[in-house]
Amino acid sequence: MAQMNKGEKTRDHILKTTRAIIVANGFHNTSISAIIEATGVKKGNLYYHFASKDDIGLAVLEDAKEEFFTFLAESFKGDSPCAKVIHSCRAIFKEQKKNNFVGGCLFGNAALEMSDNNSRFAEVIHEVFSRWVAEIERYLLLSGDGCSQHLKLAPHLLAKTIVATMEGGIMMSRVSKDQTDLEDCLTVIGALLGE
Amino acid sequence: MAQMNKGEKTRDHILKTTRAIIVANGFHNTSISAIIEATGVKKGNLYYHFASKDDIGLAVLEDAKEEFFTFLAESFKGDSPCAKVIHSCRAIFKEQKKNNFVGGCLFGNAALEMSDNNSRFAEVIHEVFSRWVAEIERYLLLSGDGCSQHLKLAPHLLAKTIVATMEGGIMMSRVSKDQTDLEDCLTVIGALLGE
Repeated sequence: MAQMNKGEKTRDHILKTTRAIIVANGFHNTSISAIIEATGVKKGNLYYHFASKDDIGLAVLEDAKEEFFTFLAESFKGDSPCAKVIHSCRAIFKEQKKNNFVGGCLFGNAALEMSDNNSRFAEVIHEVFSRWVAEIERYLLLSGDGCSQHLKLAPHLLAKTIVATMEGGIMMSRVSKDQTDLEDCLTVIGALLGE
Repeated sequence: MAQMNKGEKTRDHILKTTRAIIVANGFHNTSISAIIEATGVKKGNLYYHFASKDDIGLAVLEDAKEEFFTFLAESFKGDSPCAKVIHSCRAIFKEQKKNNFVGGCLFGNAALEMSDNNSRFAEVIHEVFSRWVAEIERYLLLSGDGCSQHLKLAPHLLAKTIVATMEGGIMMSRVSKDQTDLEDCLTVIGALLGE
């Protein structure tokens, strides 16, 4: 990444700090004054970078999206396409575990909190889910009949279900604060992929 | 159900109206004054029934929980235990479709919005997920090896994954406003259950 100038650094600082607050408290529950307090950035400077709270929220999602797909690309590791997909799901599990299942998935949270009332938010989150499904599908297609050999499921259906299961499993582990829920889902995903 | 007296009717009116507001806007974004305005109930009367906004939120979840398990019990219809589980998932799909995938799942929303910061909310939502998993597991156990015959998955793992997949699928359809997402998940659940 190119070196950031002062303005870019401030913008990035605002985005990362606000992301942490949104993950902890939700978007609606995050006030501009809380963002100002947590970032230490003056109000005028904040509004120099972002026109509104919605603008900050959208930029936080875009920034997190870029980070997620960089993470995801690096997470597909293994000897076979199916092994790569399973490894990727486990990498997400580890990230969630690192945070003790507090906060959950920013995109999942945003999907539930922001998507009905703000179509710009919904678009970004939809893009995250679609690209995530497409990345998994790409590996499933590479494996030919190797994954899901018993069930004869179309790779696209299987890829979408894996993403849905991960989101639901993260949600369940977040509520129970018990890693077993997401772990159990991973076991079934592994079985689905012929592990 | 026994006939409700006037106080019980008021309480129920507050709960059902507030549930609709929470589904539309989220809990944090729902103010006491919005509840007063929507219900037409006087402030003093509201506080006669509920001590705080958290108290209302909790009672809304408890009320919705009872309704969900009544709905769920009636949704297990079919010739075999596996067919019953599939029918139940489809009944939930139909409910979501009726609302055009606006609002999503109250428990899923609450899981993401309220569970980290309020352990009483987390307990109710955890109970919903656990009981839902247990209900599905009960049918999978009845089927012996009939469900998921190819994959040799423990009924408990499979039941949990079905709940996670439904929650994730509802989330995805809510974001895309496209029934295909949850429908695709249902196809995979059907295949998992040997349909």
